[in-house]
Amino acid sequence: MMSVDTLILTALRAAGETGVAGTELAARLGVSRAAVWARIRELRALGYEIEASPHRGYRLLGVPDLLHADDLRSRLGPTRVLGRDIQVFEETTSTNDVVERLARDGVKEGVVVFAEAQTRGRGRLGRKWLSPARKGLWLSALLRPPLTPTAATQVTVAAAVALFRAIRSQTGLTPEIKWPNDLLLGGRKTAGILTEMAAEPDKVKHVVVGVGVDVNLTASEFPEELRPIATSLRIATGQRQSRAELAVRLLQELDRVYELICTGRFEIVADEWEEHCTTIGRRVTIHQGGRPLQGTAESLDPDGALLLRTDYGRLERIIGGDVTLDK
Amino acid sequence: MMSVDTLILTALRAAGETGVAGTELAARLGVSRAAVWARIRELRALGYEIEASPHRGYRLLGVPDLLHADDLRSRLGPTRVLGRDIQVFEETTSTNDVVERLARDGVKEGVVVFAEAQTRGRGRLGRKWLSPARKGLWLSALLRPPLTPTAATQVTVAAAVALFRAIRSQTGLTPEIKWPNDLLLGGRKTAGILTEMAAEPDKVKHVVVGVGVDVNLTASEFPEELRPIATSLRIATGQRQSRAELAVRLLQELDRVYELICTGRFEIVADEWEEHCTTIGRRVTIHQGGRPLQGTAESLDPDGALLLRTDYGRLERIIGGDVTLDK
Repeated sequence: MMSVDTLILTALRAAGETGVAGTELAARLGVSRAAVWARIRELRALGYEIEASPHRGYRLLGVPDLLHADDLRSRLGPTRVLGRDIQVFEETTSTNDVVERLARDGVKEGVVVFAEAQTRGRGRLGRKWLSPARKGLWLSALLRPPLTPTAATQVTVAAAVALFRAIRSQTGLTPEIKWPNDLLLGGRKTAGILTEMAAEPDKVKHVVVGVGVDVNLTASEFPEELRPIATSLRIATGQRQSRAELAVRLLQELDRVYELICTGRFEIVADEWEEHCTTIGRRVTIHQGGRPLQGTAESLDPDGALLLRTDYGRLERIIGGDVTLDK
Repeated sequence: MMSVDTLILTALRAAGETGVAGTELAARLGVSRAAVWARIRELRALGYEIEASPHRGYRLLGVPDLLHADDLRSRLGPTRVLGRDIQVFEETTSTNDVVERLARDGVKEGVVVFAEAQTRGRGRLGRKWLSPARKGLWLSALLRPPLTPTAATQVTVAAAVALFRAIRSQTGLTPEIKWPNDLLLGGRKTAGILTEMAAEPDKVKHVVVGVGVDVNLTASEFPEELRPIATSLRIATGQRQSRAELAVRLLQELDRVYELICTGRFEIVADEWEEHCTTIGRRVTIHQGGRPLQGTAESLDPDGALLLRTDYGRLERIIGGDVTLDK
């Protein structure tokens, strides 16, 4: 069910420069003109610039830099799975935690939870992920893919490809993918993916895909120790980026690649991933605890693991650990 | 920390026929004789037969057929991980659910939760598991093994071996193991294991091992449709079995095999499993959804998956599905 706000924003966007009359909006929505006007005022209070003219009716002139669930739904358009339900929190501990609870309550796949800020955002292996208010995209999606736990890495790879496409189409820049879950611009980390799953040994019950993108942080907003290795879309492009627009692109792309892995066509995703992955073809060192492993990153296997040709000629299947590129 | 009840029961068991004086008990526990007497009365109310004689002091003559956390701790003795904390519920939905919540609250591995009855006990793939009050052992343990999700099947295999040993030592009967998670007596199912995990693609965060054993059910207590295929230890041995005793044996054995898989010695567990597995060496059909797969079950692989030699000579790695033995 679309909300009245979703319907109003969808109609305003469709009308564009032309605008849409209050009587027409009211008729389409099946509510009174006064009710339409009340919702318009609410949207204005949120920062939406909506002109109300006797001649042209309502026109959408500008949107605020906030994440508004109805607005995101309105812009997303039809998808197969992703964004079936969208929730936006002002602040939460971690969107992965929120989605995990929804999953255990039996919610269907496709729900996406955004937070304007996370107090305990995290990356892989429990590492902290800085998530300041309104500076980035911090979101998690609930998926229930028909995969074994071994193949769950496919979801991380698919999310990386979706994120790659979204960032490239919005900014014109071409990110590099660093195995297994980072996106870089000019060698600096700008986005990451945290995939967590609940499973029986032979069957995934659900996967929570968390995505963090440093969108509008300025250099001074990064802690000093991260400045040499982190960046944001704003720093890389020299201008502020619309977080809502990026969110919509990301969900659309994620919907497409998710369909591919659900229908056994992971190869297509893997090919695109390999093309943009700076890890592939390079000499790398893998740190997994214990002795570091050195070799050449050759490709992805059918489950999304990294195939490493070690210096002894053996092909090792790598599913975790930290990767550093050797000089 | 051991509770006063645990200390009293441990002392009474150690004293055996001889008994232990109230003054001595009070001194050992650092409480008054009146306090000891108050606890003894509580234990009697629970069904513990404790003799209080002016000559011999207190003697433990009989224990009730109930699961009492302090009593289980007292009988368990020192373990490496399992039973570090034991909780007993009169009734819960599913002990796996209780332990899952504890896991997400950050509780350390080793906690074991029993329920006298489960209202929504379940087996693999969401199937219902009948769990009537005081008729069986329904329990779950929290483990945090240093494994990848792919290797999590090792935990199921280890639990099956522990359960095999516990049932054999208590009843003198030799159960058959049916891949992946059933124990049978005379070809009828008497116990099952449900392993559920939370993981990142490269790392298990925790595993909940659920075990259900039909201990004292009579034939008429099974639903009609299960009677031809299910049995209990009571039916198989012709006498009631102590659930507490079986619980203690199981936790001790699970502690031993868990240490083996945590230290990379899964082979030892796998060898014992294969020896008692009726699936190995047999012609079987695997139903995984889609086309059934036929072949000969050859062995376990190093991650605990079943290696099936198909009729076309290919070796397939099977991690799920239902197995039926061909005639």
